[in-house]
Amino acid sequence: MNKKQLFENIKRKKSFLCVGLDTDIKKIPEHLKSADDPIFAFNQAIIDATADLCVAYKPNLAFYESLGVMGWTAFEKTVSYLRENYPDQFIIADAKRGDIGNTSELYARSFFCHLDLDAVTVAPYMGEDSVKPFLGYPDKWVILLGLTSNKGSHDFQLTTDANGERLFEKVMRVAQTWATDEQLMFVVGATQGKLFEDVRRIAPNNFLLVPGVGAQGGSLEEVATYGMNSECGLLVNSSRKIIYAAADETFAQAAREEALKVQYEMEHLLHKKGLL
Amino acid sequence: MNKKQLFENIKRKKSFLCVGLDTDIKKIPEHLKSADDPIFAFNQAIIDATADLCVAYKPNLAFYESLGVMGWTAFEKTVSYLRENYPDQFIIADAKRGDIGNTSELYARSFFCHLDLDAVTVAPYMGEDSVKPFLGYPDKWVILLGLTSNKGSHDFQLTTDANGERLFEKVMRVAQTWATDEQLMFVVGATQGKLFEDVRRIAPNNFLLVPGVGAQGGSLEEVATYGMNSECGLLVNSSRKIIYAAADETFAQAAREEALKVQYEMEHLLHKKGLL
Repeated sequence: MNKKQLFENIKRKKSFLCVGLDTDIKKIPEHLKSADDPIFAFNQAIIDATADLCVAYKPNLAFYESLGVMGWTAFEKTVSYLRENYPDQFIIADAKRGDIGNTSELYARSFFCHLDLDAVTVAPYMGEDSVKPFLGYPDKWVILLGLTSNKGSHDFQLTTDANGERLFEKVMRVAQTWATDEQLMFVVGATQGKLFEDVRRIAPNNFLLVPGVGAQGGSLEEVATYGMNSECGLLVNSSRKIIYAAADETFAQAAREEALKVQYEMEHLLHKKGLL
Repeated sequence: MNKKQLFENIKRKKSFLCVGLDTDIKKIPEHLKSADDPIFAFNQAIIDATADLCVAYKPNLAFYESLGVMGWTAFEKTVSYLRENYPDQFIIADAKRGDIGNTSELYARSFFCHLDLDAVTVAPYMGEDSVKPFLGYPDKWVILLGLTSNKGSHDFQLTTDANGERLFEKVMRVAQTWATDEQLMFVVGATQGKLFEDVRRIAPNNFLLVPGVGAQGGSLEEVATYGMNSECGLLVNSSRKIIYAAADETFAQAAREEALKVQYEMEHLLHKKGLL
């Protein structure tokens, strides 16, 4: 999917919501646990209940890998289900990969060819040759960690170098010499508040994937105020707050209601910015 | 496995070799391709041919994940095979993970409980709470990316901050406030040459996992000269040069011969340092 198509979807659905499929076998409702593939059954129900309210899904690979072969099977089935039934969804593998060139190349082939995902999250520490292999696929995206939502983001990402530039700023500046905003997004945590202004100075046109609204405490309004650009430029992710809105048989309906609340607020924010 | 046991193994085997199981379905000998599980059949033969010459194995997860469910099955079988037949081997999941706390916790549980691996490589960009969950398992190790072997290592890892400290130095210094050298190793690429002196100033006692000897061109002698400490302190990895030493039916024997050459040089270097 290209940037224009993504923005069209945002306007049509009046939403820039990404639903995080952080599906934990321990948290899914009891009645699903006897299903053939409980993880997939859960995902399928969540997707059917929320697809008209969001533009993207982000399965976090840790949740699938931690279950070994069973988890990978559920992950692949989830991606196929999305591709077949909701082809307008932007699918992000939240993998935070990044390795030497030949290894990143394997990951890229796996995510973009074998699985036909739209985007993968990538860690920047190993530099250009760890990121470049993901950029060889038209209309496929790298979402590079910029300024993350967690407390530890302060340990290294805010380190100021001898030229007065903070590490996250250097990462975002240098990465833009590797790829255009048609293939490169950045992860910026919703918990970073006013730092979104600094992010937008360095990366005015890139889409930002924004985790940290919901369970992690970030404010959607603040993110939109400081981070929204003329093409929206935001994919705001919510995982736990939506998918675990209820733990009983009403879980899918409860997830829909939570997603609807977020979509409603997003519609208001898009209007306010004059984008609808 | 604790540090003392690892050093004992090194002295007993006169080797600090780690064999990288970067098993690529495209590169394994033709005659194995009809096996039930060609990847596992290849790994099993490589392990049987080299286990007395090395102290560690490092499956690179990208190679397994890129094959989806089939790859994960081969990975799990390989780990089980090592655990059952060569319990003295230190097994490293080369995964380069690092995510917000609850996600890192899942990875840790997967690698250390479900699979009983000894160590996992972790990327430092997201800071303390992305690394800490891996440190809750006694005798299990975090191997944090410090100064990697690839060209892109220069993009961010060598950035000097306002206090004159380079990023890789800050990572190594700060990480030592999170864990002792009984649970924390660093990745330092063999291609970094004299920078090993700087690494040893910051991390005199930590084991270093050293990729980049072999196909990537690093020098084992240089690594030992600048990087070896009184407990050896090095696990030097070689992947492609050993496991793909031959592409025909002699591949396991050829791998053994390559490993033997490296072990022989390592024995000499351990003698020279007075450790044998």
